[in-house]
Amino acid sequence: MFLERLDSAGRGRFAFLAYDQGLEHGPADFRGNPESASPRFVLELARQFGYTAVVFQQGVAQASRRLCPEVPRLIKLNGKASLWKGDPYSPLLCPVEHAVSELDARAVGYTLYPGSEHEPLMFREFAQVVRDAGRFGVPVVAWVYPRGKAVANDSAPEVVAYAARIAYELGADIAKVKWPGDRESFRWVCQAAAETRVVLSGGPSTELPREFIDLLTQVMEAGGAGVAVGRNVWQRPLAEAQAISKEIVRIALGR
Amino acid sequence: MFLERLDSAGRGRFAFLAYDQGLEHGPADFRGNPESASPRFVLELARQFGYTAVVFQQGVAQASRRLCPEVPRLIKLNGKASLWKGDPYSPLLCPVEHAVSELDARAVGYTLYPGSEHEPLMFREFAQVVRDAGRFGVPVVAWVYPRGKAVANDSAPEVVAYAARIAYELGADIAKVKWPGDRESFRWVCQAAAETRVVLSGGPSTELPREFIDLLTQVMEAGGAGVAVGRNVWQRPLAEAQAISKEIVRIALGR
Amino acid sequence: MFLERLDSAGRGRFAFLAYDQGLEHGPADFRGNPESASPRFVLELARQFGYTAVVFQQGVAQASRRLCPEVPRLIKLNGKASLWKGDPYSPLLCPVEHAVSELDARAVGYTLYPGSEHEPLMFREFAQVVRDAGRFGVPVVAWVYPRGKAVANDSAPEVVAYAARIAYELGADIAKVKWPGDRESFRWVCQAAAETRVVLSGGPSTELPREFIDLLTQVMEAGGAGVAVGRNVWQRPLAEAQAISKEIVRIALGR
Amino acid sequence: MFLERLDSAGRGRFAFLAYDQGLEHGPADFRGNPESASPRFVLELARQFGYTAVVFQQGVAQASRRLCPEVPRLIKLNGKASLWKGDPYSPLLCPVEHAVSELDARAVGYTLYPGSEHEPLMFREFAQVVRDAGRFGVPVVAWVYPRGKAVANDSAPEVVAYAARIAYELGADIAKVKWPGDRESFRWVCQAAAETRVVLSGGPSTELPREFIDLLTQVMEAGGAGVAVGRNVWQRPLAEAQAISKEIVRIALGR
Amino acid sequence: MFLERLDSAGRGRFAFLAYDQGLEHGPADFRGNPESASPRFVLELARQFGYTAVVFQQGVAQASRRLCPEVPRLIKLNGKASLWKGDPYSPLLCPVEHAVSELDARAVGYTLYPGSEHEPLMFREFAQVVRDAGRFGVPVVAWVYPRGKAVANDSAPEVVAYAARIAYELGADIAKVKWPGDRESFRWVCQAAAETRVVLSGGPSTELPREFIDLLTQVMEAGGAGVAVGRNVWQRPLAEAQAISKEIVRIALGR
Repeated sequence: MFLERLDSAGRGRFAFLAYDQGLEHGPADFRGNPESASPRFVLELARQFGYTAVVFQQGVAQASRRLCPEVPRLIKLNGKASLWKGDPYSPLLCPVEHAVSELDARAVGYTLYPGSEHEPLMFREFAQVVRDAGRFGVPVVAWVYPRGKAVANDSAPEVVAYAARIAYELGADIAKVKWPGDRESFRWVCQAAAETRVVLSGGPSTELPREFIDLLTQVMEAGGAGVAVGRNVWQRPLAEAQAISKEIVRIALGR
Repeated sequence: MFLERLDSAGRGRFAFLAYDQGLEHGPADFRGNPESASPRFVLELARQFGYTAVVFQQGVAQASRRLCPEVPRLIKLNGKASLWKGDPYSPLLCPVEHAVSELDARAVGYTLYPGSEHEPLMFREFAQVVRDAGRFGVPVVAWVYPRGKAVANDSAPEVVAYAARIAYELGADIAKVKWPGDRESFRWVCQAAAETRVVLSGGPSTELPREFIDLLTQVMEAGGAGVAVGRNVWQRPLAEAQAISKEIVRIALGR
Repeated sequence: MFLERLDSAGRGRFAFLAYDQGLEHGPADFRGNPESASPRFVLELARQFGYTAVVFQQGVAQASRRLCPEVPRLIKLNGKASLWKGDPYSPLLCPVEHAVSELDARAVGYTLYPGSEHEPLMFREFAQVVRDAGRFGVPVVAWVYPRGKAVANDSAPEVVAYAARIAYELGADIAKVKWPGDRESFRWVCQAAAETRVVLSGGPSTELPREFIDLLTQVMEAGGAGVAVGRNVWQRPLAEAQAISKEIVRIALGR
Repeated sequence: MFLERLDSAGRGRFAFLAYDQGLEHGPADFRGNPESASPRFVLELARQFGYTAVVFQQGVAQASRRLCPEVPRLIKLNGKASLWKGDPYSPLLCPVEHAVSELDARAVGYTLYPGSEHEPLMFREFAQVVRDAGRFGVPVVAWVYPRGKAVANDSAPEVVAYAARIAYELGADIAKVKWPGDRESFRWVCQAAAETRVVLSGGPSTELPREFIDLLTQVMEAGGAGVAVGRNVWQRPLAEAQAISKEIVRIALGR
Repeated sequence: MFLERLDSAGRGRFAFLAYDQGLEHGPADFRGNPESASPRFVLELARQFGYTAVVFQQGVAQASRRLCPEVPRLIKLNGKASLWKGDPYSPLLCPVEHAVSELDARAVGYTLYPGSEHEPLMFREFAQVVRDAGRFGVPVVAWVYPRGKAVANDSAPEVVAYAARIAYELGADIAKVKWPGDRESFRWVCQAAAETRVVLSGGPSTELPREFIDLLTQVMEAGGAGVAVGRNVWQRPLAEAQAISKEIVRIALGR
C-alpha cells in the first residue's frame, strides 16, 4: 500500500540487497569473503549502486544504525536459525512499531512457510504485520517458501504460483519467491499474484555472475518487479560484487 | 442479528459470490479462466447481477478497495492454504474491527472444522467473532465443514445437520454447508439450524450449469436461504459466467 | 455465592432444563421429537412448570432472547461438539461478562473434564469463571465428568465423589454429576462436596418416565439439591414432556 | 520477604495445616474420618492449637470465609487432580491479587514439579507469583516435588536439595520438601536453600503419631523451619488429631 | 547498546562471576565447597577483585539485596533446572523492568538454545528482552548454546561461530559462548559476531587453575572480550578462589 516509500518514482521495480543469512544460514555463508561478516560491506555496496534497500534483522539494524544512514533499511521482522530440522516456524521477533520508530524501517519483511504444521502461527502474525504496516505507512514484503510433507518440490510452477497468491490474499505489497524454472511459469506466478508485485529470491551463488544476470533478465521480461539478492553479491570479492551489483541494478531498476 | 445489512428487503435470501479459493485451494483454480485471477472479474459479475456480496480475504479486499465500491464485501476472517494435510486449523487472520472499519465489511465470515483436533481454537475464535460482530453491527456467516478421524463422510445428512446446528449454537446468522444428498435431508438440516439461515456451499464446478441450477432449486424448495457460489461461476468464460449468474440470482434471490 | 439469584426462597433446591445437547451431541438428539430442535419447546415447558432455569449456549440465548423473557437463563460458557474423540477440552466460548450483560444470564455453567490431558486449561478457565461470577453476582454451576486413561468408570462412587469435590475446591456453587449407582454413594458424594450443592445429571432418556422419577427421588433423599434434566423431558412428545416435568418439579423443588 | 505476616515474633518457625488434598488426591483421603470433609474440622484444630495457617484452595477459602476468620489462611494458588497420569502441570488457578484482596490470604503457595516436561510453565508462573507477592506484601511458600523420567527417586538427598535450591533461586520465602532420609541430608538441604527456610512435607499418615513426631524432631534439629502437615492430623479422629496437633505445634513452633 | 553501564572506562573487557548454577545444575555444584551455597561467597570475591558483575537469578538477587550493594548485578532473566532431558526451553522468568527497578540490575542475561524445538519461543522472548533493555538502558548478555538433533558437537568452530552470530543478529551486546577448540577458531567466532563482543563461557572446573588461565589468555589474544566464569572460581576453597580471581581479572580486564 505504501510502495512509494521504496519507489518514489512509482516505476514498480525493486532491487533488495538481502543480509539476513547470518541468522538464517549461519556465518558459514561469510567464510569465502570474510569481510562480508560486517554489515559495512553490504551498506557500502547499497550506497554505491543504489539498491532499493538492505535487509537487516533487528540486531544488525540496531548495531549499524550510524553507518550509512542514507541507505534505506528493510527490517526483517521474523527469523530462525537453520539448526532445527522439523517443520519450520519463523517467529515474529520485531514488531512493526519498533522497526519503524526505533530502527528507521523504510519497509518490513516476513517469511511465510505455507504447508508447515506451524502455518497458522505465521499466517496470523503476518496478517497482523500487514495491518500494523498499514497504520505505520510502510510497505510489506513477504518471503514465501512452501514447505512440509505435501510439498515435494518447492520450485514447481504451481507451488511458486501458490506462494505468490498467498502473499496477495494476505495483503503483501511484494512477494519474494523462488524461480519456477522458466519464463512462462514466472509469468503465471505474476498473474496469480494479481496486484502484489513479485520479486525473485536470489538463492545460492551461481558459478558465473552471467548466469544470475540472465535469470534476472528473464524475470523482468516475464513481468517480475525485481529481485532480492544476497549471496550472489556479497559472497564475491569486492570488485566482483561491485560489477554484479552494477548489472543487477541496471536490469532490475532499469537504470 | 444484523441481516438487514445484507438483505434490506428482509426476504431472508442470499447469493454470495465466493472468492477466497486463491488462498484455500491455490491459483490452480484460476487456470481454466486466467482472467479470474484478478478480483475485477468477480466484482464486475457481482455488480452486474446483484449478488448479495463478494467474499474476500483481507489482502484482496485491501488491494481492490477502489474497484466497484458499490459491491458489498463479506470479509472472510480466517483462512489457510491447502498444503498442510493434518487436522485443519484455520486461524483468525483479520479481526472484525479491522474488517468493518478499514475494509468496509458488510458482513463477516469464518470457517469452522468441527471434529478437528484444533476445534477448540476455532470454536473460541468464532464465539469471539460473533460477539464482536454484534458490537459492530454486522452479520456473521459460518462456513461449517466437519473433519477428522470420526467423520467418515462430511456430506452425510446427520453430519451436515450437525454442522448447521453448531453454527446456531455458537451464534451464526447464516450457516454455509454442503449438500447432504437429497431434499428431505436438507429440510432437516434447516430445521436443525433453528433461527440460523442455511445456504448451500457451491463446491467444485458441475459439468453442466443446469446441474448446479437444479441443485440450487432443490435447496430453495427445502427451506434453504440461498447459496455461496464461486467456481461454478468464475471458472467459466465470461459469457457462461454471466448466464449462470443470472439464473443463480433469479432462483436464490427470487428476482 | 449468589444462589438467591436462582432460588429466591433460599430452599436450596434446583431443577434445570438442559438444552445444550444440540452442540454437545448434535441434532440427532432432536430426531425423535423434531419440535424440540427449536428452543421454543423447552422455553414453554420451563415457563409452564417453573423450572429453575433453562441451559443455553451463547447462540441459542441470543437468538431466543425475545422468547419467554421471564424464563431464567443459565448460560453455558464452554462447549464442544462430539466429533473429536481424543481427550476432551471444552473451551470457554462466552465470558461471564457477556453472558450477564448481553444475554441476561441468571447463572452460568462450565463443564470440567478432570483427568483429560487438557485438565489444566479447564481448571484455569473455570477458576477465572468463578472469580468473574463473583464480580457480576451470578452463581456458578459446574458440570464435572472425569475422563481419560486413568478413569475406567466415570460413574464409580469414588470418581463421582471426586468430581463433586473438585467443584467445591475450585469454587462452584452447584456441581452437576452422574448417578454413582446407589443412594449411599450419592450421600457420600454430597458430603465430599461440603458447601457446594449437588444436582443429578439427567443423562439419556430412560425407557419409562417412572424410572427417572424414582432416580430423582433417591437423589433428593440422599441429600441432593435437584437435577439438570434434558433428554428425559424434551425427547418425549409434548403431553409426556409436560407430565414428567410436573413430576420433576414437584420432587426436585418440592412444590 | 514478608515472613512477619506469618511469624510476628520473627522466630522463623512454622506449622502449616495443609488442606488441599481434596483436590490433589480426592475425597478418598477423608473416608477414614468423614468429618474432615468439611473445612470446619481443620479450622477448629488450627484455632485451638495455633497452627501458623491453614492451606486452602480458592473455593474452600471462599466457602469458609465466615468460619473462624481469626485463623490465618495460606491460599494455594495452583492445583490439579490426580486423575491425569502424565508429566504433571499444576496451573495457576488464583492470582495473588485475588487471594489477598478477596480471600484474605496471609500467605500464598504454589507447587513446582521440576523435571516435568511442563516445568517451564510452572517456573514462569511461580516467578510471577513471587513478584506479585512482593507487591502485595505476602510471603510465598513453594511446594517442590521433582518429577519426570530423569527423577528415579524424588526423596534422594540430592533431589530434595535441588528442590530446595530451586525454591531459593526463584524467590520463595519457604520451601516445602520431602524428607530426604536422614538428618545429615536434611541439613544439606537447608544449606542448599540458603536464605529460604525449609519445612517438611508431612506426607501420608504414619501408623503411630510417635513416628511422625520423631521425624519432625529430626527436622528441627537439622535446621528445618517446621512442617506442613495434613493427613497425619485430620485423618485421625478428633481426640487423636488434637493430641498430635499439640505435639506438632510444641516441636515446630517451640511453644 | 549500553555497555558503559558495565564498562565505564570503555575498554570493552569483561569478567563476569557466574552464579546461576544452583538452578541450572543443582546444589551438587556446591558440594566440594559448601560455603559457596551462599551468595555471600561470590559477592565477597567480586567486591575484593573487581569482577564486572555477579550473575544472579531473581530469587538470589532479591534475597541478597542488602549484601555488598556496591557489587554490580547481572540478572539472569531466564532459567531452567537440569532434570528435564528433552529439547531445552529456558523460559523468561523475570522481565527486564523488574530486574532494573526492583533488583538493581546493571545488565541482564538470557540463555538461547538455537536448534531446540523450542527455539522460536526463546528467540521471541530474547528479541523482546533486547528491546526492553534498550528502553531501560541496560546492556544484554546472551548465553548461546546450540542444541538438538542437528547439533552433533556444540563446541565445533562453525557451531560456536553460529552461536555468536545469532546473538548479533538478534541484538545482544555481549555473547557468551563455548571454547571452539583453538585460537584461530575463536578469532573467526569474534569476526562472525561483528559489533557484538564475545566472552568465554567458563565451563566446569579445570584440574589446575593454570589450564583455565591459559585458555583465557588465548581468548584475549584472539580478540575475545573476557569471560563469564563460575565453577572455576567458587568450587575452589577461599584462598585458591582468591588466587585464580586475581589472575582472571588481571587477564580479562587488563589490570
